[in-house]
Amino acid sequence: MTELLPKALVAAIEDLGRLPGVGARTAERYAYFLLRADPKVSRDIASVLGMLHDGVKVCPKTFALIDPDQNMSPLYSSEDRNKQLVAVVEEPLDVVALERTGQYKGTYHVLGGAISPIDGVGPEQLHIPELIKRIREDDVEEVIIATNASVEGESTALFIQRQMRDAHLETKVSRLARGIPVGVDLEYADQITLGLALEGRRML
Amino acid sequence: MTELLPKALVAAIEDLGRLPGVGARTAERYAYFLLRADPKVSRDIASVLGMLHDGVKVCPKTFALIDPDQNMSPLYSSEDRNKQLVAVVEEPLDVVALERTGQYKGTYHVLGGAISPIDGVGPEQLHIPELIKRIREDDVEEVIIATNASVEGESTALFIQRQMRDAHLETKVSRLARGIPVGVDLEYADQITLGLALEGRRML
Repeated sequence: MTELLPKALVAAIEDLGRLPGVGARTAERYAYFLLRADPKVSRDIASVLGMLHDGVKVCPKTFALIDPDQNMSPLYSSEDRNKQLVAVVEEPLDVVALERTGQYKGTYHVLGGAISPIDGVGPEQLHIPELIKRIREDDVEEVIIATNASVEGESTALFIQRQMRDAHLETKVSRLARGIPVGVDLEYADQITLGLALEGRRML
Repeated sequence: MTELLPKALVAAIEDLGRLPGVGARTAERYAYFLLRADPKVSRDIASVLGMLHDGVKVCPKTFALIDPDQNMSPLYSSEDRNKQLVAVVEEPLDVVALERTGQYKGTYHVLGGAISPIDGVGPEQLHIPELIKRIREDDVEEVIIATNASVEGESTALFIQRQMRDAHLETKVSRLARGIPVGVDLEYADQITLGLALEGRRML
């Protein structure tokens, strides 16, 4: 069927279809949109993707993503950040989500994923030893485990707690609160969330 | 907020966000996926997008998309295709959809869109004069109007019929059948479709 379209368009459809969650129809739509748009749009996307990998480095301390000309994440090196408070997240974009709250003045530690035997991700692939080392080096007072509210996120949180205990660390460990999201009616909340919200209720 | 991520990643997120229907979150997901994937994937996409516009030409007869080394769409020039039967479609990808049925042996005429005053598309931007000319030149017997089942598609169909009448063409004009799609229960069909299905019922 593909010989019905120009090879260049078929190639674009196939390669755009490698993006996550993009099926054949969506890839067709993207490719055809680009074909009809100013060629500059395609050239711009081609250019940024060509430079993507060389333009991104990993911070050796926090494992957040940084520019190639930076030595360390400014979210760690800045004087404004409290190095004795560390939020542990799964992915670099989680840092952006927490920063958007505008409420957090501590530092971050990016694990690089969560423990997931199904996906072949074991604890040895995550930056957990570096976290333990950092807790000692920076004399960290509190570790906020901010992994996702998924089975993988919970297992990872438990694993980190156990590792910290095994390393005889006295550091406080906290976890993001679970509860009803803002703007959601009680009747639409799932029972597990509602149960956690009840358990974590606060005295007024 | 964007200074929290490397410039190269921010640029990728911004430019991927120019794809149709891709918001900030989806663009982030695409860019981050590419960053974690083999750099070859990004390079492949960059390369096909860079070559997209130079690798696609428009057939001067049918306005379908063709390879740069082709003079005319093979769906027109092939001996197997009945040049006296022309299916009129809005977009080049509609040709692929009709070919997938495996039932059509006529040729195509791509209008390049549909009449849509809101989007600033008037009939003068569509390949309608070329259709009229072609009907005469090829001695076309039947024109199947296969525009979309939208307000714009219907207006375009009406406009073409009027143009053909004004040009005193005796050519037969047909329209794709409207009705209940295969696999859809009556109770879920909308009332307009159901009305059209009733109107277009076939004697057994």
